[in-house]
This record gives sequence, C-alpha cells and structure tokens, in this order.
Amino acid sequence: MSGNSIGQNFVVTTFGESHGVALGCIIDGCPPGLELTVEDMQHDLDRRRPGTSRYTTARREADEVRILSGVFEGKTTGTSIGLLIENTDQRSQDYSDIKDTFRPGHADYTYQQKYGMRDYRGGGRSSARETAMRVAAGAVAKKYLKQVHGIEIHGYLAQLGPICAETIDLTQIEQNAFFFPDASKLEALDEYMRGLRKSGDSIGAKITVVATGVPVGLGEPVFDRLDADIAHALMGINAVKGVEVGDGFGVVTQKGSEGRDLMSPQGFASNHAGGVLGGISSGQPVVAHIALKPTSSISVPGQSMTVQGETIEMITKGRHDPCVGIRAVPIAEAMLAIVLMDHLLRHRAQNHDVTRQTPVIGMR
Amino acid sequence: MSGNSIGQNFVVTTFGESHGVALGCIIDGCPPGLELTVEDMQHDLDRRRPGTSRYTTARREADEVRILSGVFEGKTTGTSIGLLIENTDQRSQDYSDIKDTFRPGHADYTYQQKYGMRDYRGGGRSSARETAMRVAAGAVAKKYLKQVHGIEIHGYLAQLGPICAETIDLTQIEQNAFFFPDASKLEALDEYMRGLRKSGDSIGAKITVVATGVPVGLGEPVFDRLDADIAHALMGINAVKGVEVGDGFGVVTQKGSEGRDLMSPQGFASNHAGGVLGGISSGQPVVAHIALKPTSSISVPGQSMTVQGETIEMITKGRHDPCVGIRAVPIAEAMLAIVLMDHLLRHRAQNHDVTRQTPVIGMR
Amino acid sequence: MSGNSIGQNFVVTTFGESHGVALGCIIDGCPPGLELTVEDMQHDLDRRRPGTSRYTTARREADEVRILSGVFEGKTTGTSIGLLIENTDQRSQDYSDIKDTFRPGHADYTYQQKYGMRDYRGGGRSSARETAMRVAAGAVAKKYLKQVHGIEIHGYLAQLGPICAETIDLTQIEQNAFFFPDASKLEALDEYMRGLRKSGDSIGAKITVVATGVPVGLGEPVFDRLDADIAHALMGINAVKGVEVGDGFGVVTQKGSEGRDLMSPQGFASNHAGGVLGGISSGQPVVAHIALKPTSSISVPGQSMTVQGETIEMITKGRHDPCVGIRAVPIAEAMLAIVLMDHLLRHRAQNHDVTRQTPVIGMR
Amino acid sequence: MSGNSIGQNFVVTTFGESHGVALGCIIDGCPPGLELTVEDMQHDLDRRRPGTSRYTTARREADEVRILSGVFEGKTTGTSIGLLIENTDQRSQDYSDIKDTFRPGHADYTYQQKYGMRDYRGGGRSSARETAMRVAAGAVAKKYLKQVHGIEIHGYLAQLGPICAETIDLTQIEQNAFFFPDASKLEALDEYMRGLRKSGDSIGAKITVVATGVPVGLGEPVFDRLDADIAHALMGINAVKGVEVGDGFGVVTQKGSEGRDLMSPQGFASNHAGGVLGGISSGQPVVAHIALKPTSSISVPGQSMTVQGETIEMITKGRHDPCVGIRAVPIAEAMLAIVLMDHLLRHRAQNHDVTRQTPVIGMR
Repeated sequence: MSGNSIGQNFVVTTFGESHGVALGCIIDGCPPGLELTVEDMQHDLDRRRPGTSRYTTARREADEVRILSGVFEGKTTGTSIGLLIENTDQRSQDYSDIKDTFRPGHADYTYQQKYGMRDYRGGGRSSARETAMRVAAGAVAKKYLKQVHGIEIHGYLAQLGPICAETIDLTQIEQNAFFFPDASKLEALDEYMRGLRKSGDSIGAKITVVATGVPVGLGEPVFDRLDADIAHALMGINAVKGVEVGDGFGVVTQKGSEGRDLMSPQGFASNHAGGVLGGISSGQPVVAHIALKPTSSISVPGQSMTVQGETIEMITKGRHDPCVGIRAVPIAEAMLAIVLMDHLLRHRAQNHDVTRQTPVIGMR
Repeated sequence: MSGNSIGQNFVVTTFGESHGVALGCIIDGCPPGLELTVEDMQHDLDRRRPGTSRYTTARREADEVRILSGVFEGKTTGTSIGLLIENTDQRSQDYSDIKDTFRPGHADYTYQQKYGMRDYRGGGRSSARETAMRVAAGAVAKKYLKQVHGIEIHGYLAQLGPICAETIDLTQIEQNAFFFPDASKLEALDEYMRGLRKSGDSIGAKITVVATGVPVGLGEPVFDRLDADIAHALMGINAVKGVEVGDGFGVVTQKGSEGRDLMSPQGFASNHAGGVLGGISSGQPVVAHIALKPTSSISVPGQSMTVQGETIEMITKGRHDPCVGIRAVPIAEAMLAIVLMDHLLRHRAQNHDVTRQTPVIGMR
Repeated sequence: MSGNSIGQNFVVTTFGESHGVALGCIIDGCPPGLELTVEDMQHDLDRRRPGTSRYTTARREADEVRILSGVFEGKTTGTSIGLLIENTDQRSQDYSDIKDTFRPGHADYTYQQKYGMRDYRGGGRSSARETAMRVAAGAVAKKYLKQVHGIEIHGYLAQLGPICAETIDLTQIEQNAFFFPDASKLEALDEYMRGLRKSGDSIGAKITVVATGVPVGLGEPVFDRLDADIAHALMGINAVKGVEVGDGFGVVTQKGSEGRDLMSPQGFASNHAGGVLGGISSGQPVVAHIALKPTSSISVPGQSMTVQGETIEMITKGRHDPCVGIRAVPIAEAMLAIVLMDHLLRHRAQNHDVTRQTPVIGMR
Repeated sequence: MSGNSIGQNFVVTTFGESHGVALGCIIDGCPPGLELTVEDMQHDLDRRRPGTSRYTTARREADEVRILSGVFEGKTTGTSIGLLIENTDQRSQDYSDIKDTFRPGHADYTYQQKYGMRDYRGGGRSSARETAMRVAAGAVAKKYLKQVHGIEIHGYLAQLGPICAETIDLTQIEQNAFFFPDASKLEALDEYMRGLRKSGDSIGAKITVVATGVPVGLGEPVFDRLDADIAHALMGINAVKGVEVGDGFGVVTQKGSEGRDLMSPQGFASNHAGGVLGGISSGQPVVAHIALKPTSSISVPGQSMTVQGETIEMITKGRHDPCVGIRAVPIAEAMLAIVLMDHLLRHRAQNHDVTRQTPVIGMR
C-alpha cells in the first residue's frame, strides 16, 4: 500500500486535494446490515467543518457527503462503500503566490522533493481538508461500534496553549465552539484567541479522546498492539507531534508501585494504562492524548526560500485556523473509531469462538 | 496480517515466547548484495541482552543468532532471511506460581481473555524477550541504511525517573551501562538504582532516538506518514506509553512564530519538527522520544485476582529489570531502523526516477 | 483487506454496483510525472463499453470517466488518483422480478448467504459492470508501462464456442467487434452469434493476453510469483473459470525435452513458459489464456428457487451479452497491466541498484 | 510484502533454500485452542517427502518438523507459530557444475537477473524443496478446517502424461505411490515411468483437489474471490502452468443452458461451477485442477548458456523427479487448505453475526 489506506479488515482509502474537484473515500469491509444514511456522517462532518465559528478559518465548505455505493435500502450490503464530497469554495487565486515558494513549517518542500512536483493549491493533498473523509468514514465506524457493541467515543480539547481544562465535564463539550470540557475557562479561551488573531500568530493544543465500552481482547501482538495502531492513526493526523496512551509521558517519573492498575473481581482500581495492557484492550476506557503544533500559516513574516533557491521573507496569506487543534477533535475521534472497528473485526477473525466464551468470573 | 509482521516492502515477522524453544524472525524484502554475518547482529543483541550489568535482570541468555537462509557466500540473496535464537536459560519453575493468577499491570489478564488461554511462563509472547528478534532484524536494516545511504541511528536514555540528561554527549552513550549521554549524572543514576532495588520497586524512563543522514522524501501520505509509522513502531515496544516526534508535547504551548523551522538555501534554521514535514522526511535528523512505564514486576505487594475470580495479594518474583527503559535503547533504535528501511524501499517503488533527479538547488 | 483492492505498491481499490449511483476507484502508488487525461482511459472504456455492437448487451452507458484527484496540470502528482463514472442507464425496473429469486449460475444465492442480504438490482456488486473501473485503472498502468518501459499489452478473442482463431494477425483485432485476430472466421462468428441469439442461449470463450517488452526480473518468490499474481488477477474477472500461462494445460502431456525453452546468448529458442521462469519474468513476452463461461443470463428456462425456499422455473430477462468473453478482452488487458505495474514497482523497491546493472551479456 | 507470505488473516510466511541450513515458516493468525502436535504435520510431510518410492527423486530428507512457538500444553495459543525443518541431505557437490550455467527451463537465469546473484545450490529458493513448509502450514489449516467445520480436502493425480484416471475412487489414492484414484491404470503408470527413466526424460501431470464441507459464503468480492485466491495459491506452486475451477477450460465450448447449475431447495443439480459462484463458495464441493509441466532437470542434452554468455550443451545431473506432479498432490491440498482457512477467518471478521443466521430454507 502506498499510504492512502488504513486498516486491515476495516479498510479506509481516501483521495482528494484541498482545491481539487472532490474528496472521496472507500470503506472496505464494513459489516452488512448496518443502517446508514448521510445524516449519520453529516453530524461529525459539521463538527469538523470550517467556517462555523469565529475561531476557525473563514473558508466555507458545505462538506455534503454522498453515498455512492455499498448501501441498499438504507442498509450496508457488505460491499465497498463509496463516499464523495465535492469541493465548492476553492478560490485557487488565494494560493497562486505560493506556487514557487516553500512555506516554512509546511509540506511544500518535502512534497516537491519527494515527487519532483506538487499541487501547490492550498497545500494539495497535505491540506487538513483531506481529513473530512476520515471523519465521514469514522462516523460509519462509530455507528457500528455504538449500535452493536455499545462502544462510545468522545474527544475534547484538553489544553489550548497555556489554558488547561481543570474539570472534565463531558456535557460541556458540545456546548461551545472549542470542544472544551471546562466551562469556567471559556472566557479566557475567547480572550486568548482574540489576542492571537490580532498578533497574526497561532497556537498549539492538546486533545484527549476516550472510548468507553470497549470489550477486553482487542489488539494484536506484537506489532499491531491496540496502542501501537492508535498511535499510528493519531500521529497520522496533520500537525500531531505526540501521542500518549493512559498516563503517557507521566510514566517517566512513576514508580512501578504507583503506576500499575491493581485489580479485583470487581474490576480495576485505576486506569493508568489507558485501557490497554500488553497491547490488548483491558475492558477499561481507552484513553489517548495528542499534541498538535500551531499552524505555520501565520501572518508573522518568516524566512524561507523559493523553488529556484532564493531566500525570501514570507507571510502566509489565506484563511487559516489560528488553532488547528480545535477542529481536530472530531478527526481524532474518527481515527480512534476506525482503529477500534478494525481491531474488532480482526479479533473476530481469529477468536470467533472465544468471543462467545464466558468471561473470567467477576470481571466485566 | 495478525500483528506479528511490520513493514510493507521490508517486512519483519517474528515468533517466540519467553520460555519457549526459540525466538525467530523472517525478513522479507531485504535488497540483495548486502554483506551480512551474525556479527552484524550480535553487537546490538549484546547491547540488549539481559545480565550484562547489575542494573538489569539476572537472567542470562547468550542470545546467539543464527542465519538460516537468505544469505549465500556472505551476501544477502534477495530471498527471505530466516533468523533463529534458541532459548537457553528458561527456568520455567520460576513462573509456575503465576499460572492461575493475573499479575497486575501485566498482559496476563488480557491474553487470557483474548485467546481463552495463555502461555503463562514468563509472560509468554508478551515478554520483552520477544524484542530480541526485533533487534536482530533492526541490525540488518541499520547496516543497509548506513552502508548504502550513510544513514546512522543512535539512541540514548534521556531520563530515568527524576534524573534527566542535561548535556547530550553521544560519545558517552556506549561508555556506561545506562546508555546515558551525560557522564556527570552516572553516579546519581547508580545511587538511584541501588535505592530502587532495595525498595523492590521499579521506575519509568524516557528514551531518545535520532537518525542522521536521512534523505528528504521518505514517508507516504496520508496514513503512512513517516512519523505515523515511527509512532506505530515505537508504541509497539513493550511498556511504551508515549511517543513524540521533534518537539512533541512541547508544541502544545508553542506559538506558530516559535515552532516553525525557517529555511534558506543553506538549510533549516532549527529542527522543531524532528525531521518530518507533512509526514515526509525533510533531510534533517529524524528525532523521536518515547516514555516507558516502570515494570509492574516488583516485589512490592499489590492486589490482584486469580483466574477463578478470587482476590489475592501478590508479589512478582523472578528476575526483572528495575528499569526496562535501559535495555530498550537498542530496541528503539532497531524499530526506527526498520521503519526507515521500509520507507526507503516504498519510496523507491513509486519514485524511482525522482530519486535520481537533482535536488532543489542549495538544499542538502 | 476485504477484497476490493488489488496490488501491493500500485494499488487499485474500487466500489460501485450495477445500478447504483456511480462506479469509482482509487489508484494509490502511481508514480508522479505521468501525463494523464481522461482520453487515456476513455479509449479502453469504449472498447469495454456495452451497446457498441449487435453482439453485446443493448444497455447503453456512456462510461465517461472523471479524474477527481491526483492529477495536476496534466500530470500525476504521486498522490492517490480518484476516478468516477456515473451510472446513467439504470432501468431498475428490469430487475424487480429477481428480488426474491436466485438466478441459477449467478451470485444471487451466494451474496444473500454471505451477507444476509443483497442489492439485487442487476446483480449489484457482482455485475460485470464493476469491471469498468478496472479498465480505467488498467489504462493508467498501460500508459506508464508503455511510455517508461516500452511494455505493450494486447488481448484478443482466441476462441468463441467451437470457432478458433487459426491465424493470429494482431492488426485485425481492433478491426472487428469480436477482437478476433483471424479475419477469415468473422463471417462464421457472425452467423454463430445470430443463431445463439435466436435460441436465447449463450456461449463460452477463450481470450489470450500478451505483454511484450517486459523486462527480466519481475515477480516475487515464492507466493507472489508473477504468474501466480496474473492468475489471481485474471481468475478474478467475472465468469473466468480457467487461467493458463504459456503452454498451460498443454504441459500435461509434454515431455521435459519438448517443453523446456532452450537458450543461447541470442535469446530463447521458444516460449513454452509464457515469459515466466520460477515465477519471474524472463524477458520474453508474457502470455496468458483465460476461459470464460457462458453467461447464465439466458432466456432458456431453468429450475431455481426463491428466497423463501420455493422451487421455480425461471427465465432471465433484461439486456445481456450472449458471449461475455468478447467484452472481456479489454478487461483482461487491464488486469495484466495492473499486475505488471505493481510488480515493476515492487521489483524497484527491493532491487533499485540491480535494475541499473548491466544485464547478462548477449541477452536482451 | 515481498512475496514470501500468503494470506490476510491466516498468514503463512516461509524461508529456506534447497541446500541451506533449514526451512522454516511462521503461521500468524491461527485461532487459539487447536490441539496441535508435530504428528499432525508429519503425515502430510511424509506424503510429500522425496525418496519414498522409485518414482521420485532419490534425495533423502527426513523432513522432521519442530514446533518452536505458538503451542502450549498441546494447544495453539493464538500467537505466531514457528516451524522448522533442518536440511540433512544436502550434497552440495552435486550442484557445483551449475554455478556458472543457466539450466534451461529453470529459474537460474531469472533469479540471476532479478537479484544480480543467486544461491545456485540445487536451485536455492526456487527449488520445490521450499514447498515442505507449505505442507506443514497447510496441515495446521487442514486440521482446523476439519475439526471445527468438517471441511475435508483431498487431492489426486488425475493424469500423468497420456494416462488419465477414468474412474475416481478416492479410497485408492493413498494405496499407491502415484496418488492415483484409478487402480486399473497403475500397471500402465509403472510401465510408463520405467520407460521415462530409461530415456532420461520427464513428463507433465494434472492434479485435482477437492474440498468438501465448505460452508456457503467464503470469498471476498471483487478481487479476492475465492477462486481468484485459489488460482493465486495453486499457480504459485512450482511447475504449475494452468489452474481451473470446476469445468475450467471446458466452458469455452459450453452453452449457458448446459453450464449453469440448476438449483432447488434440495440443493444444486450439478457442480459445473466447482463450488464457487460470483467468487463466493456455494456450499458445494470446491473443485480445482492444475497442470504441472515436466521438470527441465533431465539427462537429455539441451542448449543453454553460461553466466559469461557462452553457448553450451548441458545435461542436468543430480537426483530429480521424472514427474514432479506426483509429489505435488499434498502441496496442492496444502495450498487449498491455506486459502480456505484464510477466507474462513476473513469472512468471520466482516460477517460475524451473519454466520449465526439461519441459512436459506432447505439449502445446506
């Protein structure tokens, strides 16, 4: 595979550039019989969609998804599902000035060198616009996971620059434009973002995603551990520079007597492990955190170079998110959903009979 | 695939349990014509090998690797390479008491639930002993990368519990049993480890791995970005709970004007990105950090349960590393080597002609 | 993967049903810099297209393909290529009577049992209409193979029922509606087809595909031999029941002294092997033959059953090809092209340096 | 993957050369809880083993397989299974004269050109000796298929040169050294083989493999149809030049009214399709045929060339099978078993719930 697919048994393959004709994806391996409509995907697409608040880019995309195959009379048939979103607000002219320059901190230079050419319009394939199809595919996984197994996935912004969520109130997440679980900090966030926009700068963020209801047993030793595949999926989101599962980098200064999750027939006493032991889900909530770098598309001038090798001072114009972390919440949820879905199917393949066994006494 | 393979074009597949007959691996896709002897692998195997210092487990394994195929008259032939290490110091009796119990913080419970049974001897497949074959396979990748492309990979212990390396002197790494780059902290480390052993406890660690000489262009958009595959490979090492590339979680509080790496025809002015832009290597050193949790195999008693569902108090006996992070240095190097090797071959497959093009003027 | 993808480094993934909204495919791994327009694909799509002669189904599909991504300023960019063909002539009403019945010789029964449901309109995903996207993807491979390596692929109808081609004149193939290389038999073919249509019956066929200019060295021991992957690709075409490489089933009665291809510095003396030795291309033309069964969609009544388990007598109405073998010629070419393209890239990945070596003296 | 693996969820990866140290394989994805001993594999290994009758090569290999991992207390654990066979009768000296020559009809030339070098001893990786590990892995699949699903696989020699089996008596197959189902032809076979050996020549063969008890529903549209994967697996056996499913090339002259398998609630009236409809198993026996070319290792002189480019007359010395088709019977069975096993697991992954549904009324 050349990188545009993810998964082994639930496989998502995508195409599409920021300013191309359309974005699309094929989902291969979705179980048959799942009720599926565009509405199931549209909700998450709207959560990711730009232009919905003053904190995100002003680019306006309807992001209306169409189901082209794999669904018949409202249900998945087991054959490959084709999804399509047409690009509507392309404004290629905004980007013509970057044709011959490499924006610092962007993929312009590496694409050019890798392929000997690049679609420079809005970053082409390297644009975060590509993630719209991940969200659509993730919504399919989410629906199956919830409906058939009671697995639910929630993400939230845990930190934006210096501002941390101190209380985690999941009911708050969908109530504000930041996906922020701590209502007491919303004003501070708003103020911070105003300042940022004024300075023409951008800021990093930390996102947390949690899956509850995950059955024990998902994950394949030794290379495709559940946490390894989660790390792959989350690090593969634009701008992500770090992934943690459970206590993450906090374990560096932990002692073994502090960090292990003691267990009894009533369950685990804690969840330092983030729901994964030996690469296999433990039945506890699966918890992951990611760090997103501030976008390099800022109006603060910076040194760069042209394709011809001249040094230049450049400012990235166009419509950009001052904090790409905000809109990444539904993307991270989608990626976690895709990984869990894939591992659910992989587990079934090998352990069909085991899944019908009685679990260990006393443990959920 | 069911998890025991890694890579697409350079594929490493392993087998073997802690107390089984042998550990083995198959390397598929290694280019022909590479000079290869057991000595090439033995060096790294010895670095990973237990029982070499008082800071690691007392288990003694010779870890002598044999090449069973794929090498003829001292060179790789292009066919699959079979490698084998026989287990010699098995002492199964040490582990008989864990047959019916789940060690807290270990994979005993999840393996039992996933498969309906488990090889309980020394953790079976979930033991870090499995990583010996990764190191052997990684050594093959390392040799090719260095010989053909001048790529070199170095890892070191960046932090052990509260003790951080403050100066990074690469020449120190192989001079001490900790793979530690700051000689001024060696005494403190020794003292810390003595205290730890006395208390029967264990400690977490942070490791850094760096690859220099990586050409620009490695990494496959969009899911198999170089950093995503590095995250997959590193998070798949036993006890790893976090992976960072470049500035990692430091980006959360960074501004775009601080975090972007400015560039000129003379090169990049910094390497916040850790050598990866848009998922593709930039030609700068590739830098990753990982967090390893303290082993749960400690003599501090902790609550757990039996397979039959009874609550118990348990102490993990046997011979264990008080800081598994130390020996993980060569493992992390091996995993990074395998990922780079795989991406080098993947890049060639698609961009054969491009790789012979003249690079952009002025950039290395 | 769940079956809708083919290839390892040049990967084609498709979706779409006979009477769905659209057919689509994603090509992942196409080398950058290839000039590509819809015209490159349209030629082969038109050759496969129904309704072009009185010997094929009367269903009329424009089969106009659109490029949605992966091409910029007329050239492939190295990112995934999205292709789309909208279905225009769907006439779902033709098929409403098969909703509750299983057509004998069709996939109705097996899809229903596999998935617990099926898209019964025109066979859904099991319809040969699906192959349109294979032809489009194959055309991309064909263009690259020809332009960069001088590899050309030609297919022809070698036999239709009792009528065999006795002389193989490649210049004839595109001159008649049968892709038949023996002009002396065209009248007989026409007559045979008239009789067939009158009787409401259908007939089998044999197709030959040949690739010339294939370099020595393509094919991966041991499971992904070039001939094994060709067999996979060709047997995966609807209605194919047999695949031969070179002398095929003729070898059963051959002696070793007859069947081996003697060689000298001037080349091979014969090509019994069909261009593949030990699963690796020999530099000779790659030759494969396939057998296509007569379609079961005929107006001769036959016993079958309903979904409810009742015995019925049924006639398949609708617009069907009396010999599906005819239109399969461009499909077989496309599949051979996809396999060769994939193996070219796979070979490069591992043998980058070898491919620049001087070949053995005297051999092309 | 680089060709040494087969399967998606039940994955077999092999290594080993004819005259190397050992042959080995890793089975990844085998369900846990299967009772497995070396005896389960040894039976089929002995059937394939050379030197067991006067009709096969005189090379004597014990082919004793060892289980190195993945089995604990007599049962598979779900982790990867390592298998090993040491080479004992290597006699490298027999082959030293082919170091600088390309045997006609062999893979010597193509390996040399692909990799720039080759292990010339006994054909190295291209030797049929490699198939021993396929037989071992196939035996694991066979056992699971039979024990858990009642699927049984039988192969036989259907034709040897001019001598066809006219009656198929399965009870005869294991009673003679030819795996021949027609006892009335045994004398003729013996006589034919004597004549062949006297003339120093070899002969082709046709083998049939049948799987009974296969449930309806195995096979993945559209590229990984069950028959496509069977074709891949069988064409990947050394010397195979043709694969048929069901009526195979017989369909070329068939009419639709003859070739379709009529159905009723009592089952199918015939099995022209060979148990596969639309690429999915129909519940009928899966039937495949393969054509094996005569070995080119004969003592009849033939023209060839040296590595240096000189024309030579050569005779292949050494110990060879005059009809490689005979010993290929257990190999073909193994490959069919591996494919069915893989598809069983793949089917489960996606259609877990469906497999517990009530089948269509009246059909088995």
